[in-house]
Amino acid sequence: MLTPGVKKELERIAGKDNVSFSREDLICYSYDATNASYLPDAVVFPGGPQEISLILKMANSEVFPVVPRGAGSGFSGGSLPIEGGVVISTERMRKIIELDTANLTALVEPGVVTGDFQKEVESQGLFYPPDPTSLKFSTIGGNIAECAGGPRGLKYGVTKDYVLGLEVVLPTGEIITTGGKTIKGVVGYDLTRLMVGSEGTLGVVTKASLKLIPLPPAIKTMLAVFPRLEDAATSVAEIINAKVLPCTLELMDSVCIRCVEEYEKTGLPQAEALVLIEVDGDAQTVEKDSESVKRVCLDAGAESIKVAADKREIKALWSARRSVSTALTRLRPYKLNEDVVVPRSRLPELIKGIHDIGKKRDVTIANFGHAGDGNIHVNVMVDDKDPDEKKRGEEAVRDIFELTVKLNGTISGEHGVGITKAPYLKMELSKEVMDLTRRLKSVFDPRGILNPGKMGLEGPSAGQPYSAGLRR
Amino acid sequence: MLTPGVKKELERIAGKDNVSFSREDLICYSYDATNASYLPDAVVFPGGPQEISLILKMANSEVFPVVPRGAGSGFSGGSLPIEGGVVISTERMRKIIELDTANLTALVEPGVVTGDFQKEVESQGLFYPPDPTSLKFSTIGGNIAECAGGPRGLKYGVTKDYVLGLEVVLPTGEIITTGGKTIKGVVGYDLTRLMVGSEGTLGVVTKASLKLIPLPPAIKTMLAVFPRLEDAATSVAEIINAKVLPCTLELMDSVCIRCVEEYEKTGLPQAEALVLIEVDGDAQTVEKDSESVKRVCLDAGAESIKVAADKREIKALWSARRSVSTALTRLRPYKLNEDVVVPRSRLPELIKGIHDIGKKRDVTIANFGHAGDGNIHVNVMVDDKDPDEKKRGEEAVRDIFELTVKLNGTISGEHGVGITKAPYLKMELSKEVMDLTRRLKSVFDPRGILNPGKMGLEGPSAGQPYSAGLRR
Repeated sequence: MLTPGVKKELERIAGKDNVSFSREDLICYSYDATNASYLPDAVVFPGGPQEISLILKMANSEVFPVVPRGAGSGFSGGSLPIEGGVVISTERMRKIIELDTANLTALVEPGVVTGDFQKEVESQGLFYPPDPTSLKFSTIGGNIAECAGGPRGLKYGVTKDYVLGLEVVLPTGEIITTGGKTIKGVVGYDLTRLMVGSEGTLGVVTKASLKLIPLPPAIKTMLAVFPRLEDAATSVAEIINAKVLPCTLELMDSVCIRCVEEYEKTGLPQAEALVLIEVDGDAQTVEKDSESVKRVCLDAGAESIKVAADKREIKALWSARRSVSTALTRLRPYKLNEDVVVPRSRLPELIKGIHDIGKKRDVTIANFGHAGDGNIHVNVMVDDKDPDEKKRGEEAVRDIFELTVKLNGTISGEHGVGITKAPYLKMELSKEVMDLTRRLKSVFDPRGILNPGKMGLEGPSAGQPYSAGLRR
Repeated sequence: MLTPGVKKELERIAGKDNVSFSREDLICYSYDATNASYLPDAVVFPGGPQEISLILKMANSEVFPVVPRGAGSGFSGGSLPIEGGVVISTERMRKIIELDTANLTALVEPGVVTGDFQKEVESQGLFYPPDPTSLKFSTIGGNIAECAGGPRGLKYGVTKDYVLGLEVVLPTGEIITTGGKTIKGVVGYDLTRLMVGSEGTLGVVTKASLKLIPLPPAIKTMLAVFPRLEDAATSVAEIINAKVLPCTLELMDSVCIRCVEEYEKTGLPQAEALVLIEVDGDAQTVEKDSESVKRVCLDAGAESIKVAADKREIKALWSARRSVSTALTRLRPYKLNEDVVVPRSRLPELIKGIHDIGKKRDVTIANFGHAGDGNIHVNVMVDDKDPDEKKRGEEAVRDIFELTVKLNGTISGEHGVGITKAPYLKMELSKEVMDLTRRLKSVFDPRGILNPGKMGLEGPSAGQPYSAGLRR
C-alpha cells in the first residue's frame, strides 16, 4: 500500500531508527485487547507533533490510513489498523513535562503510562483519579482517545473530567491547542471535550493538560458478602440513598468469584455476590461513611461485611478484583466482554434481565464491575470452536444491549465503539445524530485518512454483525 | 424583515397568545446585562421542541435570524438579536420534569430559574453547585449556553461539569438527544459538551439531564482582612498549597469594598483587600480546614480573619459580595466588566499588572471575583460622556487581555464571547482553531440562521472595536 517514496519519506521525517516495515514489528502493532489482528504497513515512532503533522499531510496527499496507538490495551478495536497503513505509536512521547503543584495541573505527553503518572502525582500529595484496570500499561493518550473510566468514576468522574486542554495534530496536519490549564474558560467551542473519546478519529493528541486534586488522606476498603445477587445490586443504590458517595463500589457475581478463586486462591468468600466498597476522605469522614455503608449493606441482605485491616488485606482484595477478567478466560477461551451502563437504580433489573438472557440463550454470563455508576462488565462466555455456542453468545449480547437501552442506559461506558460496538450504534444513536457525527468527522478529516472504519462512521465495519471483522 | 406570511405561521405554530410583534414587548427582549440593545422583529414563547423545530425550519427556508434567550442576564451579548429576527424565549418551558434522588440526576426544561432549581434540589438533601451571581433570575438554559460559572468553580466545577445529556433542536430543525443520565457513556462524539458554552449558535436546548451530588452537611464562612492586595492574592495559592480546597475563595479590592460600603452599609472592614473563604464537607473536615485557612491567611499577611458566627452573618457577607457589581456602577455609570482567568499561581502578577495598567491609562479599575480558580472580574470604570476616558478604558481592557494571555490565561472564564469579546478572539485562538470553528458552525447551521454574528464566527461584530456594536 505504501509506495517506496512514502516509505523513504517516513524515514526522513521520523529518523530511520524510528520507522519499521519488518513483519515481526508490524505483528506487534497489529492487535489490541479484542484479540483481533490487522497488519499495518508501517509503524512509526514520532518524537513530537511536527513529525506527526508531516506524516498526516503526506497521508492526505498520498491517501493512506494513519492509526494512532497508545499501549494497544483497548477493548473495542480503536487502535487497530483495519485498513492497513501507518500506525503512529506514541511510545517515544512519554515525558511528564510539568507537574504544577500550585495550580493542581500537569502537562504530559500522550505516551506516559497512566499508572506511572499516578505514582508521580501521588508522591506530591496529589491525585489523578481515572483508573482503568489497564493502568499499569495503558497510556494517557489512549485513555483520552477512549475516555477511559474505572472504579472511581462514581465519585471522581472519568478521563474527560480531568482534561483541561490539549495539543492536537488535526488529520489535515495543522497543530492546534485547545483549552488551557484553568478550570474556567469559555472562549470558543469546547474542542477539548470533542477530542476526548473521539477514538483517534478527529486528531492525534500530542500533549495534555490535566487537572489534579488533593490526595484524600484516608481510605477504608470493605467487602460485603451477599447470599443473593439482586440484594447486592439493591445495596448499591441504597448506599447512595444514604448520602454516601464511595470512591469505589464494585460488584462481582458467583461465576467471577469462583473463577478468581480457582485462578488465584485469594481466599475470597464463596457467595452469590460480593461488593467491594471503598470510602475516602478525611479520617473522620471515612469512619462515619464506613459505618453507614456497613449498616446499609446488612439491612439490604448482606450476610457479613469485612473491613480490610491493613495494606496487605487491601492489596489482596484489589488483586482479586483486578484478576477477574483474566481468570474468566479459564472458563471459556472466548469472552464477549461488554461494558454496559444503566442508571444505578435500574441495576437490579439489569442483573435479573441478564440472568434471564443467559438462561434463554443457554450461555454462561459473568458479571462484575463498577456497580456504583451503573457500569457493569458483562462477560458472555463462549467456546469459539463451538459455532452454535458462539452464535448464541452473540445473540445474548444483542439481547443485553437491547435491555440496556430500554433501561435508559448506554451500550458502552468506557470501552468505546471502535469496531466491536459499531453494528449496534443504531440502538442508541438516532439517524440525525449519526448524520451530524459523519459531517463533523468530514470537517476534521475530509479525506478520511485518520483511523478509518471506526465508530460506525464509514468503512467496512459499519453495520456488520458483531464479530465479522474480528479474528480472535 | 418578517413577511406577513411568516408572522402568521409563527402564530399558528406557537399559538396567537405566545407570539408578540408589539414594540413594547420587543423592547423587553432587546437587551441583556451588557446594556446594549437591538430590537427583534418578533418574540415567541414556544411550549416545546416541536414548535421550535418548526420555527427553525421556516427560518431556513425564509432566511431570518432566530435567537434563543433565557433571562437575558448575560454579560457578553449572547442573547441579543443583533441582526433582528425572532427571539425564542424559553420562559414557558420551566418544568423540573424529574428529580431522581436514587440516581442523583434531574431532568429540567431550559426556562427553569437556576436558584429555584437549587432550592428544590437542596430540599432533597442534594446539591447542584453551579452558582452564577445571576442565579436568582438566570435560567438553566442560559447557563448551559454560556457555561455559567460562579464562586464554587474551584471545588465543584462549572455548568459543563453537571450536564449529562441534552435534548436539542438543531438549527436545521432536527430534534436530537445527546448523552443520557449516567456519568459514564462513550458512544459517539461528546455532542453534549460541544453544545455547552456554544452560546446558542449550534442549537436550542429544550431539555437538560443534570448531575447532582449529596449536599455537604457543614459549611464555614470566613472573612480575611489584608492590608496589602498582593498578599491577599498570594494567600489564595497558599491555601491550595496547604491541600485545602475551599468551595469559595473570593477576593475584593479596596475600590469594591468602599463602593459596597457606600451602597449598602454592611459594616465591611475597610482594607486594601478582603478574601471571603468558605469550606464545606463533614463537620470535622470543615473544622480542620478552617483552622488551616486561618493559619495560612495570617502567615500570608492578613491582619485578621473572622469566622461568621451564624446564618445572619453568613448572609451579610454574601450580600456584600453579591452587591459589588451593582455598587460599582455608582462610581462610574459605564463599567467595562471583564472576567479574565489566569492559573492561580499567576494571580499576584495579574493583580499587580492590572494596577500598573490602571495607572498608565489613568482609569479606575476595581477587581473582585473568584480568586480561587484564578477568575477575576476586572471592572474598568469610565464615564461614557467623557470620550477620552472611555477610549482610555478600552485601551486598558486590551492591555488587560494581553497580560492575561501572556500569563497563560483566558480572556473569558464565564461570561462568554458573544459580541463583546469577539474582537479579541485572535489573541487567544489561532487561525486554525477559528477556521475549524467556523466549519463546525456551518455543519450545524449551513444557512447561518441561529444566533448570527456571535463568537466572532461571522457577521458584523467580528473584528470590530470593543464597543462599536454596543449602545449602552
